[in-house]
Amino acid sequence: MRVLILGGDGYLGWPTAMRFSAGGHEVSVVDNFSRRRWHEKHGTDSLMPIRSLEERIEAWNEISGNQIASYIGAIEDPEFLERVVSETKPEAVVHYGEQPSAPYSMASREQAVETQYTNVIGTLNLLFFLRDHAPECHLVKLGTMGEYGTPNIDIEEGFIEIEHKGRKDTLPFPKLPGSLYHLSKVHDSNNIQFACRVWGLRSTDLNQGVVYGIETDETAQDERLSTRFDYDEWFGTVLNRFCVQAVIGHPLTVYGKGGQTRGFLNIRDTLQCVELAVDNPPDAGEYRVFNQFTESFSVGQLAELVQASAAELGLDVEIEHVDNPRVELEEHYYNPVHTKLLDLGLEPAYLGDELVRSMLKTIESHRDRVIDAAIDPQTQWKPSQEPAGAR
Amino acid sequence: MRVLILGGDGYLGWPTAMRFSAGGHEVSVVDNFSRRRWHEKHGTDSLMPIRSLEERIEAWNEISGNQIASYIGAIEDPEFLERVVSETKPEAVVHYGEQPSAPYSMASREQAVETQYTNVIGTLNLLFFLRDHAPECHLVKLGTMGEYGTPNIDIEEGFIEIEHKGRKDTLPFPKLPGSLYHLSKVHDSNNIQFACRVWGLRSTDLNQGVVYGIETDETAQDERLSTRFDYDEWFGTVLNRFCVQAVIGHPLTVYGKGGQTRGFLNIRDTLQCVELAVDNPPDAGEYRVFNQFTESFSVGQLAELVQASAAELGLDVEIEHVDNPRVELEEHYYNPVHTKLLDLGLEPAYLGDELVRSMLKTIESHRDRVIDAAIDPQTQWKPSQEPAGAR
Repeated sequence: MRVLILGGDGYLGWPTAMRFSAGGHEVSVVDNFSRRRWHEKHGTDSLMPIRSLEERIEAWNEISGNQIASYIGAIEDPEFLERVVSETKPEAVVHYGEQPSAPYSMASREQAVETQYTNVIGTLNLLFFLRDHAPECHLVKLGTMGEYGTPNIDIEEGFIEIEHKGRKDTLPFPKLPGSLYHLSKVHDSNNIQFACRVWGLRSTDLNQGVVYGIETDETAQDERLSTRFDYDEWFGTVLNRFCVQAVIGHPLTVYGKGGQTRGFLNIRDTLQCVELAVDNPPDAGEYRVFNQFTESFSVGQLAELVQASAAELGLDVEIEHVDNPRVELEEHYYNPVHTKLLDLGLEPAYLGDELVRSMLKTIESHRDRVIDAAIDPQTQWKPSQEPAGAR
Repeated sequence: MRVLILGGDGYLGWPTAMRFSAGGHEVSVVDNFSRRRWHEKHGTDSLMPIRSLEERIEAWNEISGNQIASYIGAIEDPEFLERVVSETKPEAVVHYGEQPSAPYSMASREQAVETQYTNVIGTLNLLFFLRDHAPECHLVKLGTMGEYGTPNIDIEEGFIEIEHKGRKDTLPFPKLPGSLYHLSKVHDSNNIQFACRVWGLRSTDLNQGVVYGIETDETAQDERLSTRFDYDEWFGTVLNRFCVQAVIGHPLTVYGKGGQTRGFLNIRDTLQCVELAVDNPPDAGEYRVFNQFTESFSVGQLAELVQASAAELGLDVEIEHVDNPRVELEEHYYNPVHTKLLDLGLEPAYLGDELVRSMLKTIESHRDRVIDAAIDPQTQWKPSQEPAGAR
């Protein structure tokens, strides 16, 4: 199958590219290296040293014998993206090509605009070019569980049957996104759903939980194939960040009460889920949503898990409740449905002591690369300074 | 009160500016004349001749003795918009400053991107500058009833209480927008709601029905104060377009079966609603939604009303069912709640024969200005040509 991976140089994009390539598919990747640039600008970096895309692709070719084609450019650039879509004629597009950080989107107006522009306009371009050049293609879009927020009812997979004043309809599940980044994903979901309804495109929107982990079967084959591992306040997700904090002797920074509960999954399961989606495409005109996570944890539970796992390795780790930089409920109901991927055959790798210990050991071997100043949260959802124009 | 009107040169923006000015408010208007430019580009024009913004403001000053300040620029331009907000320090912003046409947004990728960029990024800029320079300001945002689409349940005003699996929450009403323009308004609504929740801004989202009518109390005072009146396929709304068709002897073009039902209101009631919203601001942090229309009609009913009214003036008007260029349900349930503005004191001017006859007469006096070629729908929701890359 011809598979086009947008954001193919990223944490998930690169392992996904290798996975599909290993499976015998004809893989092309698109990236504009914005993640690498954002890190440079912010004085941060991946904990695991990573090779350039060119070197990665060469190494993969050497090891697997398979070719991966690359296109360097931005999906916001219509001439570029149209050329990519019309040349590669993809049967499936896996779309990770977005600004993926909530705090990044909240740090300034410029970054908020960059996030919504990149994500919404980039995806809108893609929808038009799929319509015009590859209308049968299956668009597998990475969304996020954060689109839903934390309503006081069970979260369904994309749609909910509502009975109201004696009538019934099945409608898009109402969303309460928690940042301008999460909002960009909601906007995308709405645009994609429309393109399926009106133009007959087909799409799977993967509302993914928080991903953790360092390795996949392919990245483990050679250090040159490593994927990035972020732990900084912008791009590091909570469990990855806690593990780095444990290794360097930094208290685990739990935001507020730590009762915030989210869905989580191992990076290996991300690849499994994306493969299951691609292998089981929706019908033409169908827009479906899978909630892509395997287990729910509160932030406090994760901190305790990391603390306990670290103790087994002789590390004495503190947990610190810091002021929450975000605006979010710190105690809430959370019970999202996530059966559709299980029904397709997902076999989850659940989180446990052993995995956390293995992450801690890998991080230990790169501890000299940790940039301490990158760890504590700086970005406030609510700027605390007095508004410039306060009356 | 200091009132800032975005899109103050438009069909609704200009009459709104005069209304607030007549009410003794300190009014500033912002416009970048994009509506005038889009018409030039498309070879179309307002039926009523309209003056330049400068001439309008001069005429208004001559007639009323009141000053209206103007700022010429785009809200997508952050330097410009920040200067406007920090200089005017508005207590209320009435935001009409968006690309307002569904067919315009569907005509090409470029126009779709322009629409979502202008509307989403422009409004996002505004939210940041209100946060930073006028955090107490009341943002009155023009949304549209088209954000909801036509679900099979009663449409509530912005939020709905959902009971699901034994639990309850009040959540944003699910949306089924019918074009990429309508989607831009949904994206805006979501961004604004977030800014209220997280930054404590206050906003009223007016989900407006389809507006009809030519005159308001202020525009009627002098021909130099006239507001634009569009009848072309992009910017003309259905009743206004039917009236022009009746006058020039063109069949009334009903799309498909004509059972499409929508909320409608007189332009005079738009002004009343916006005034009621401004006079009754929400609390800090509150995001509220009013469904702003006074009556529902199907497209077929409107065609019959125009036909009957025209007959009284001796005009013999045909109704023609043309292929629907849009993708929409042509027969559906429609019962949106619209009580909040009535509760605040709205006194609707209902649609009847007399109003339609008066519109027909005014149009008759400008019939030499009608550009026939602009009337029939050209823009297809689903491009009918074979996709360039069809396999």
